[in-house]
Amino acid sequence: MSIVVMKFGGTSVADAEKIRQAAKRAIRAQKGGNQVVMVVSAMGKTTDQLEDLAREVMKGKPAPKREWDQLLSTGEQVTISLMAMAIEAMGASAISFTAGQIGMVTDDRHTKARIKSIAADKIHRELDAGKIVIIAGFQGVTESGAITTLGRGGSNVTLVAIAAAIKADMCENYTDVDGIFTTDPRKVPTAKKIDKISYDEMLELASLGANVLHNRAVEFAKKYNVPIHVRSSLNTKKGTLIVAETESMEQILVSGAALKDKLARVSLVNVPDTPGVAARVFHTMATHDIVVDDIIQTVDKCKKTASISFTIELSELSDTKAVCDKLAKTLKCGVVYDKGLAKVSVVGVGMRVHTGVAERMFSAMAKAKVNIQNITTSEIKISCLIAESQGVKALRLVHDAFELGGKPKAKKKTAKKAAKKKTAKKTKK
Amino acid sequence: MSIVVMKFGGTSVADAEKIRQAAKRAIRAQKGGNQVVMVVSAMGKTTDQLEDLAREVMKGKPAPKREWDQLLSTGEQVTISLMAMAIEAMGASAISFTAGQIGMVTDDRHTKARIKSIAADKIHRELDAGKIVIIAGFQGVTESGAITTLGRGGSNVTLVAIAAAIKADMCENYTDVDGIFTTDPRKVPTAKKIDKISYDEMLELASLGANVLHNRAVEFAKKYNVPIHVRSSLNTKKGTLIVAETESMEQILVSGAALKDKLARVSLVNVPDTPGVAARVFHTMATHDIVVDDIIQTVDKCKKTASISFTIELSELSDTKAVCDKLAKTLKCGVVYDKGLAKVSVVGVGMRVHTGVAERMFSAMAKAKVNIQNITTSEIKISCLIAESQGVKALRLVHDAFELGGKPKAKKKTAKKAAKKKTAKKTKK
Repeated sequence: MSIVVMKFGGTSVADAEKIRQAAKRAIRAQKGGNQVVMVVSAMGKTTDQLEDLAREVMKGKPAPKREWDQLLSTGEQVTISLMAMAIEAMGASAISFTAGQIGMVTDDRHTKARIKSIAADKIHRELDAGKIVIIAGFQGVTESGAITTLGRGGSNVTLVAIAAAIKADMCENYTDVDGIFTTDPRKVPTAKKIDKISYDEMLELASLGANVLHNRAVEFAKKYNVPIHVRSSLNTKKGTLIVAETESMEQILVSGAALKDKLARVSLVNVPDTPGVAARVFHTMATHDIVVDDIIQTVDKCKKTASISFTIELSELSDTKAVCDKLAKTLKCGVVYDKGLAKVSVVGVGMRVHTGVAERMFSAMAKAKVNIQNITTSEIKISCLIAESQGVKALRLVHDAFELGGKPKAKKKTAKKAAKKKTAKKTKK
Repeated sequence: MSIVVMKFGGTSVADAEKIRQAAKRAIRAQKGGNQVVMVVSAMGKTTDQLEDLAREVMKGKPAPKREWDQLLSTGEQVTISLMAMAIEAMGASAISFTAGQIGMVTDDRHTKARIKSIAADKIHRELDAGKIVIIAGFQGVTESGAITTLGRGGSNVTLVAIAAAIKADMCENYTDVDGIFTTDPRKVPTAKKIDKISYDEMLELASLGANVLHNRAVEFAKKYNVPIHVRSSLNTKKGTLIVAETESMEQILVSGAALKDKLARVSLVNVPDTPGVAARVFHTMATHDIVVDDIIQTVDKCKKTASISFTIELSELSDTKAVCDKLAKTLKCGVVYDKGLAKVSVVGVGMRVHTGVAERMFSAMAKAKVNIQNITTSEIKISCLIAESQGVKALRLVHDAFELGGKPKAKKKTAKKAAKKKTAKKTKK
């Protein structure tokens, strides 16, 4: 008998009817011969409402984190009990568990706790008794009994951690989209659902803003080799399988493309090129809790100075300015800030074995006169920093260049060729 | 240093502002040199909303009780964490506990669990550390970790149980009224707040429908001799002290009067007067979960038959009819149902040592031509069953007869005397 762990996010349990739909799906899976565990999030906007209440009570003061977690964890507790009721009302047998009841023990870092252990025995016992086991996502409990929460994407972490603990055969992550797409379909209409993607590719895409699965959940899944099936709670179509890398995956040059906008760049120029400068710069950033994205350093051998650039989210710019202005004074160097930037990236394990990926990307951009301001790469990713105003255009270009939306049809091809010719002419001018 | 346990009901924590008000009161009590524990209910209509959600999910099916408790307990959990936040925001120190976290262990009778033990040490430890300890009312936890609820009036049971466990000097029960009144002020405008009342009197009044404190809480308080101060969360006036009986209380003939309406009466007539008949009748009622109020049995020595009457709430009449029609057939006796009844009662420990209470009550009713259909008494209570249409009138009569609203002022007395004369004349006719 296989064990399936199904996770339903907030939009998939947003009201009584959606809870009943999710319950039906779990019962169907059980009747199909599986042992079924469900991990559920808080209903719809519940968490937001609780946060609003807390802010109203605190009147602008920072909330004590232990109490914050005690408050937010009620959202999932409501869903687990309603889900168990829905399943029982349909004639199947269910039992709900809070993190405390199932021994989902974490450290005591409230609001971003890490899971230490799970009482898998208790889950197995209930499954063996024929029950559908429903577990509150996003929450944990410290050894002394305080409730913790797991931070952003926490319910997915719960999903994968439970699956790993009980050695589940499959994780199913139900959301309001059909799966992982080659890129954001709202920006590129030709975006296609990906059938299978490796953990590493998913990690790169997630860090580039593909918002379906949080990185911590994927890392966990990779570590314990738990396959995740991301699929829609609205239909029964197959979604995207996130699995360990296979050889066949390398046949595909690029799996997905992503755009991250609202970026800013900080450039420290004419920095004395002495050992330890970079360490000093990023130590300063870290102590001020500034999240740095890509880093580029270049050295001018003649002037014996370096230039250190890094990108940050635009929202962090004013905090960063305060820190970097001071830093530049100490280092006796200049500092330049740029706004209005975006990053377009392509991701694929195929890059490891195939050449020409970078060339194809850059030439697609060049043909459309998109100026590349910085380039950064990893083993399976190439990113270009460009003007934000050209972001969506650039995303479409690279999405097309790697035929991520499928091979262009004959007619379209002609049209595109014509367009290319036009561009070529323009370039000649 | 004294220990005070304060309980705030749903209306006293209905929104963020009210929570802040309650927090202020707790901080004030702490600054006044007390160790402070708070017991809180779910905010305003939260419990109702959760119940509605459950019904929506269950579509008319009965909810599994374990899950019902798991759901409802979130209401109090929200309040405890918000209360702790409010206190911390005001600069004092607080910690919130669910029943599970504080070891409020109950049996496993979900929806009406009984408390078995409380981890008083943990509460003392936090109090000694200078914290205001906030505990979720209404809930408990079984030895195996399932969440239970304590049934109607459960938060007051929590209040008294906590107070008993930590040997508190005072329980304060904050509600939306100023205290316990001599009778319902909505029905009798001259009703007066009672300063001090004994546990037994409170028990009688509560069972007569004075809805401030549930009987289980008062029984608990009596057992552990915990004084309860019922007072308003809207002002700082002294409310009503519920305490062990003192000699001075016996000086007061009657402490309060109450009206319970919407009653029905079932009379089994010409029942063969053999031993065990009454037991058989009420065993049948009990097995059908019919709550019986007062019971009266009379025996006709000549006919060797008995008449067994009992009152029930009108809402239970149709269920009761089904049971009693069958029962009458088996017993070969008649059965009569009466609707439109009410019960007016007076309560006071003074009755034990003073005579003439019954006479004063009956004559007040007689003068006003209120027909008494049944009389039942306990050591400290006299009840009269009357027509519901005369209920409020009768309540005012007895309230006046025992001067519960205070001694009538000179002018009013004259007016009343005139009225009495009028009545007297009518009677003569």
